[in-house]
Amino acid sequence: MTIDEEAMELHRKLNGKISTEPKTPVKTRHDLSVTYTPGVAAPCRLIAKDKHEAYNYTIKGNTIAVVSDGSAVLGLGNIGPYAALPVMEGKCVLFKEFGGVNAFPIVLDTQDTEEIIKAVKAIAPGFGGINLEDISAPRCFEIEERLKEELDIPVFHDDQHGTAIIVLSGIINALKVTHRTVEGTKIVVNGAGSAGVAITKLLLRYGFKDITMCDITGILSKTNMDHLNWMQKKMVEVTNLSGKTGTLADALKGADVFIGVSAPGIVTKEMVASMNKDAIIFALANPTPEIMPPEAKAGGAAVVATGRSDFPNQINNVLVFPGIFKGAMACGAKAITEDMKLAAAKSVASLIPDDQLSCDNIIADAFMPEVADVVAKAVMGQ
Amino acid sequence: MTIDEEAMELHRKLNGKISTEPKTPVKTRHDLSVTYTPGVAAPCRLIAKDKHEAYNYTIKGNTIAVVSDGSAVLGLGNIGPYAALPVMEGKCVLFKEFGGVNAFPIVLDTQDTEEIIKAVKAIAPGFGGINLEDISAPRCFEIEERLKEELDIPVFHDDQHGTAIIVLSGIINALKVTHRTVEGTKIVVNGAGSAGVAITKLLLRYGFKDITMCDITGILSKTNMDHLNWMQKKMVEVTNLSGKTGTLADALKGADVFIGVSAPGIVTKEMVASMNKDAIIFALANPTPEIMPPEAKAGGAAVVATGRSDFPNQINNVLVFPGIFKGAMACGAKAITEDMKLAAAKSVASLIPDDQLSCDNIIADAFMPEVADVVAKAVMGQ
Repeated sequence: MTIDEEAMELHRKLNGKISTEPKTPVKTRHDLSVTYTPGVAAPCRLIAKDKHEAYNYTIKGNTIAVVSDGSAVLGLGNIGPYAALPVMEGKCVLFKEFGGVNAFPIVLDTQDTEEIIKAVKAIAPGFGGINLEDISAPRCFEIEERLKEELDIPVFHDDQHGTAIIVLSGIINALKVTHRTVEGTKIVVNGAGSAGVAITKLLLRYGFKDITMCDITGILSKTNMDHLNWMQKKMVEVTNLSGKTGTLADALKGADVFIGVSAPGIVTKEMVASMNKDAIIFALANPTPEIMPPEAKAGGAAVVATGRSDFPNQINNVLVFPGIFKGAMACGAKAITEDMKLAAAKSVASLIPDDQLSCDNIIADAFMPEVADVVAKAVMGQ
Repeated sequence: MTIDEEAMELHRKLNGKISTEPKTPVKTRHDLSVTYTPGVAAPCRLIAKDKHEAYNYTIKGNTIAVVSDGSAVLGLGNIGPYAALPVMEGKCVLFKEFGGVNAFPIVLDTQDTEEIIKAVKAIAPGFGGINLEDISAPRCFEIEERLKEELDIPVFHDDQHGTAIIVLSGIINALKVTHRTVEGTKIVVNGAGSAGVAITKLLLRYGFKDITMCDITGILSKTNMDHLNWMQKKMVEVTNLSGKTGTLADALKGADVFIGVSAPGIVTKEMVASMNKDAIIFALANPTPEIMPPEAKAGGAAVVATGRSDFPNQINNVLVFPGIFKGAMACGAKAITEDMKLAAAKSVASLIPDDQLSCDNIIADAFMPEVADVVAKAVMGQ
């Protein structure tokens, strides 16, 4: 049976991958009076006096919403809220299995930015955090920024920040095994959607200075801005400081790091060979990367990471998002700050001790049991 | 320890009365690829072609939202969404424990009718039904009507219809034990909020002709309408056909049935004595009824029902709502129709065989294990 066939059979059998389960039974009249009326009035009255008590007496203390409008789902594109539901349920399963965080999927029957913001704000009182998922750029930037401003609970767009954090953690270790410094490292990010933008921002914040972004038209520069959205235009202000122009191939000449969140097969062995010695290649297009690992190695790459589990160095957000929210919920954080993101990236990098690092071992196994706790602790320390 | 103290301790300990639980473990890379990516794309693609497949492959097939704005919570009034959350969680527990229906609480940060309608429509794709809860009248009428028109999933305001159904089921049996007919029975409904209106509507639909509604100002009639909301005005058109005026005491003279969804202690023994012989008293104000059962009996009542578990004939919606949604979900119903409500009421009445009916046994025990299945079957038969 193929994975697809197995997935279809499992999804049909389960009819929903999560259930809502009472934490307390109601088998007697006494149970009913404590769990529901009249007893329930006591915590209600307490929360009516101080709404923060909701964190202590209700699901708000440990439950997040996984919110999507279905506009940019995995490799499937704009398939809408109904078809996005299996992905969001899956994400909720991962939150619970990897992070112990209760998560419930909310798929929205609108793709209008203002309506999405309104809907999420409307349902926010019952949740301790909002994980935005699979919302297309550039709407995702505004939706997240506005919700962060207007809500007092953490709002986190995993496609942006989960990806950025796991990429940074991989880059931290890749620099170590190729003996590079942050200052001397030239990075090319190919793809200027939600992930490419967030990766670039986090790398800048970490301290990298020389980052060039490319999209399908080539290098993003002040002379190549007409087709860019407002967020991409902002990125041009802070990247490509030397004002390079040209194609992705031009950008890669003399670069140290390629990070692709773009399209299959667009990087050649020759392009890798034009990069600096012992190049670092993060080819994250899924399921077919920008260049396959053996070809990248043949071009001289020292470190190759992909999104795939059948090659070394799998870049997988599941190392990040469960621990991020686990930590945020545990400390009652009002937001996921930039410092929390950096701390999370460093903590994931630290999961592999220096003496075990190698070109084929820069990213920990997502199934290491301590991952979420290590990330959560790092987040809580900020 | 009092019930209140016990409830506080339980709510604090549980920190939320429901959890979201994966129905399938993710312990291996293979689990991950079937539950999440890449396998999840297969059901996504199927649903993208036909959104109705969401009923078969996602939680939509067996999960409802319990939605409130916290504007009319139990006896607590307008305590807002945060303080309403323990009640909504409790309701979700009951849906699962009594009906096997997954339910998740959604508390809304708005009490604006249009915004509530928009928010519920926005989140509807992920749910198989909407249970509206504790939304104040008259907004609840418009919100429910509009959502029923604009959504293709069942929308059910339990404070209205759950109450109306359980009351009708009790009345059906009370008529039997007092040897009355639908045609000859005069009913007074005291309280013209969401429950009073819904009870009256369902009784009319069942076939009762002589119903008089009262509120705090007395009998609702065409000469006493200035203070009424639009729904109450509509009710005056179809009740009190003889045009009575006066007080509740006036209304009760010569009536057969009193149904109170109003305020504690407002009915006296003398008022009961002024009713027809073997009167039927449903005194449902909680926790203190309109008249206590011993006093009502002293006034000559044959059947007395209350919302309390410490007297016979407890009128409790939990006999109704789990089965209503269990049935609706099982048959993929697009709405809870009037016929379903009548069928549900008859089915609850039928839980007590005729030879076991008595003045103190007109309503089944909510903990009878077959209740939800009997109601669900009745709903599905419509």
